[in-house]
Amino acid sequence: MTHSVQLLGISNAIVDVLAHVDQAFLDVIGAPLGSMTLIDEHQAHDIYLKMGPATEMSGGSVANTIAGFANLGGSSAYIGKVRDDQLGDIFNHDMESLGVNIRLDPAASGAPTARSHVLISEDGQRTMQTYLGACLGLSLADITDATVGDPKALLLEGYVWDIEEGPALAKKAAEIARQNGTAVSLSLSDSYCVERHRESFEDFVKNDADIVVADEDEINALLGTDNIDAAVEKLASLDVLFAVTRSEKGSVIVHGHAIVEQEAAKVDQIVDTTGAGDAYAAGFLYGWANDRPLAECAQYGTYCATKVIQQLGGRIEKGLLDNFS
Amino acid sequence: MTHSVQLLGISNAIVDVLAHVDQAFLDVIGAPLGSMTLIDEHQAHDIYLKMGPATEMSGGSVANTIAGFANLGGSSAYIGKVRDDQLGDIFNHDMESLGVNIRLDPAASGAPTARSHVLISEDGQRTMQTYLGACLGLSLADITDATVGDPKALLLEGYVWDIEEGPALAKKAAEIARQNGTAVSLSLSDSYCVERHRESFEDFVKNDADIVVADEDEINALLGTDNIDAAVEKLASLDVLFAVTRSEKGSVIVHGHAIVEQEAAKVDQIVDTTGAGDAYAAGFLYGWANDRPLAECAQYGTYCATKVIQQLGGRIEKGLLDNFS
Repeated sequence: MTHSVQLLGISNAIVDVLAHVDQAFLDVIGAPLGSMTLIDEHQAHDIYLKMGPATEMSGGSVANTIAGFANLGGSSAYIGKVRDDQLGDIFNHDMESLGVNIRLDPAASGAPTARSHVLISEDGQRTMQTYLGACLGLSLADITDATVGDPKALLLEGYVWDIEEGPALAKKAAEIARQNGTAVSLSLSDSYCVERHRESFEDFVKNDADIVVADEDEINALLGTDNIDAAVEKLASLDVLFAVTRSEKGSVIVHGHAIVEQEAAKVDQIVDTTGAGDAYAAGFLYGWANDRPLAECAQYGTYCATKVIQQLGGRIEKGLLDNFS
Repeated sequence: MTHSVQLLGISNAIVDVLAHVDQAFLDVIGAPLGSMTLIDEHQAHDIYLKMGPATEMSGGSVANTIAGFANLGGSSAYIGKVRDDQLGDIFNHDMESLGVNIRLDPAASGAPTARSHVLISEDGQRTMQTYLGACLGLSLADITDATVGDPKALLLEGYVWDIEEGPALAKKAAEIARQNGTAVSLSLSDSYCVERHRESFEDFVKNDADIVVADEDEINALLGTDNIDAAVEKLASLDVLFAVTRSEKGSVIVHGHAIVEQEAAKVDQIVDTTGAGDAYAAGFLYGWANDRPLAECAQYGTYCATKVIQQLGGRIEKGLLDNFS
């Protein structure tokens, strides 16, 4: 079967506002280190007022993955909602300049383009305070045969479940996918997100997903397990391809009884962990979309994740993957 | 005499749109390596369309200097024109979060906040394509006793001469300064800018300026000289304090017959030269505003310039100057 593009992302379209902070700053705003908190427009204004000078870059979890996938040379498309404002222009520009086909027009009214305040600690860990803005307007009506098309795979992110019509539009996308022989993949976003929507995720993973990309905490939150061995045992009973990232412990790929373990690469200095999982997903899915063996897919994922944590921001700089083969 | 703040900047308020490019890209858009070209909104749209994914950061030459000055612990204020749009919010936020007192309200109509497309080559050199947008609306009416106040020094940039009322508002600012015992300083921006407005700059340097910060090319363009020795000889005849930066050759301070030479610091790898001169000016003027000897001012300037070329973007990251003493 021929597919128009290899990978379609469906996710929250977000511009990151990145700044370095110390622990005292996180204490003042009451944000646990490493967490992602959804905030409203008023809170977003307040935190921005308290923050130091920042750098703005296109972000969003699955949006980062799509950008990375395109950067690797994969063909891709994207469904996400921005407003027709300057940050929306930036978001779409950064996608289109990588060759990503943008499937939705910016909204002409309503809340502004989403912003995530990414607060980077001295050790490179990131704490996120996210105002979803225009993303909240992504709706069932945006998911159609025309916008989804017939990609080889589509990729949803768990954060989509945080928007009102999210669970329904994910189901609709999966239905369209089934008709076109499109593989349905899901990135679980973060463990708090998994806890917010566990039942719905369990249902989606069992009944709709072909591929799931997640970190160890997210998988444990999904399965109610508390260690990787117990999790792997449960994953093996599902007919789904799982790629589970484990930070410095590498990653493990589980597809029924096929299990591939991949070591992490050595990194001299972690600059910013933003986007590590997203970059892994980009590499892994690039391998998968090009019919590479699972061990190679895991190597690609590791390569991309290793690159992204050695720079500021969640998207791999153009050109950094040129030596990738 | 007591001054309300140490340094007031008057300049073009610009958000930088930074991306790495290769020589082929510069050839396509016809931009000489290292140049700064003024472009209109249509051209800005066109170049952005051609550019890869970018990072956005507040910029502008003298605005960078003011941010660096505030980062060092100096008290400062700023006059520049943004639009009440998202990029304008970003610009003002990044200033105010450093404690800079913003003296003008954003424009409620007219062109959007200015953008400079900063194209960074592999060797760290930057080529700029700048759309002045809202900056073009900075006018004589914005320069008043109330907005200028009585800073210890004010700092204008040569680029202000590129806007219609620029030369007149610079003169007006200098007049207000004279009444308040404010030193008038000028950063010459770039050698092409000096060539565009040479007569007006000559007049301003001779009749209004107390301090001039410039690089070697700009000074040569101003004086019609072709080497540093000839330039220094001419500068010595003027009753103006000159700080002349010379890249890897360091800098030279000339105040009449007092001449101080400062070596450049060794740098392992230049990441991006954006803001080197602006950062030098921040350190130099911080020393000057705190009544330090000229040799120490030059050391401060060198310290800041050395920091900024080892990072992406024209503003020194908050905290990087904490070890400065």
